[in-house]
Amino acid sequence: MNTDQIIPALNWRYATKAFNSDKKLTNDHLETLLNAIQLAPTSYGLQPFKVLVVSNQEVKDKLKAAAYDQGQVAQASEVFVFAVNKNYTVEHVDAYAKDIIETRGGTLEDIKGYVDTMKGTVNSRTQEQLAFWNAKQAYIALGFLLETAALYEIDACPMEGFDNAKIDEILGLDTLNLTSVVIATVGFRSDDDKYQHAKKVRKSKEDLFIML
Amino acid sequence: MNTDQIIPALNWRYATKAFNSDKKLTNDHLETLLNAIQLAPTSYGLQPFKVLVVSNQEVKDKLKAAAYDQGQVAQASEVFVFAVNKNYTVEHVDAYAKDIIETRGGTLEDIKGYVDTMKGTVNSRTQEQLAFWNAKQAYIALGFLLETAALYEIDACPMEGFDNAKIDEILGLDTLNLTSVVIATVGFRSDDDKYQHAKKVRKSKEDLFIML
Repeated sequence: MNTDQIIPALNWRYATKAFNSDKKLTNDHLETLLNAIQLAPTSYGLQPFKVLVVSNQEVKDKLKAAAYDQGQVAQASEVFVFAVNKNYTVEHVDAYAKDIIETRGGTLEDIKGYVDTMKGTVNSRTQEQLAFWNAKQAYIALGFLLETAALYEIDACPMEGFDNAKIDEILGLDTLNLTSVVIATVGFRSDDDKYQHAKKVRKSKEDLFIML
Repeated sequence: MNTDQIIPALNWRYATKAFNSDKKLTNDHLETLLNAIQLAPTSYGLQPFKVLVVSNQEVKDKLKAAAYDQGQVAQASEVFVFAVNKNYTVEHVDAYAKDIIETRGGTLEDIKGYVDTMKGTVNSRTQEQLAFWNAKQAYIALGFLLETAALYEIDACPMEGFDNAKIDEILGLDTLNLTSVVIATVGFRSDDDKYQHAKKVRKSKEDLFIML
């Protein structure tokens, strides 16, 4: 891997506020971004979220209205909506245990200790705590999406500013027992987006890190 | 950027359970990982966390004891501890506003609307909600750390399984008004770590994504 361009790519990226709506992601781009999200690590490996990937213009227009009319939602090639379960249960652990056995072989007995630990964690938490826990896992995957996009010179804007209930309604998340936690608009920056020229503001290393 | 090796690198990485304690990160490695964390996006750009980077063996040994004796904490070259503020206030917004002006020029009056919006958000949330919000931002940076490490063939293990209060005590976080939220051990895998040979278990794309 030629690593020289990784940090420059992270400097190149910025929260894109205006996309060129004529420029769409290729299928290869999209596949790569899905792979990055799929490969992101999560606590115990449970992957406790779903990601809605919206290319449909009509749906993106509706999402824009539910995101305080921020233009990038309608202009972006794709809108990624990360959602977590509203009722996370040990059944999700059972489904994961089945996946482990299908992928690695062995029996349920072989992984009983691991499964019991996971179920113990799930059972010890309230639904609110579980939603928080699961949202944090989604944010790791959001990080993988944003970094991978930057490495491919694909623009993106992570967004928390939206009407969660409206987004859920538009996407039918209620009926799936899901609720939206964070969004990323993905595509290619517009030449007109003045924010691409703004200097990146970051805490100094002295301020951000404590070295021990 | 030669992008061919990005997804393979994300497949190569795994939650490393045993590190080769003789193999240390170079200063260049460490600097790159700090850059990746520093460049990770956060809500409003507030970067509402600190990262303790522990190289000291004595401290790592203590952290290991506070992390249910998981060996990787003592073996890793560095232990990254992400911590958030226990009392997040508008003063943090003021400090950020100062950084914006120092970096981009202009006056406080120019960014008054933005600053007021941020302060409104901070003031509308309880300390518990702020800690949750800030932890999520730290998880984006965790994602950047883990992906960047993988691209450099540096191993890592994200960890939530630790005694938060004990970690805070060891690192003196209480006196800094901080509390630990997530850890990543970073270094190079031991040849003996059997988990490196385990097949990666991931949800299918059909299960993880909803395409609209």
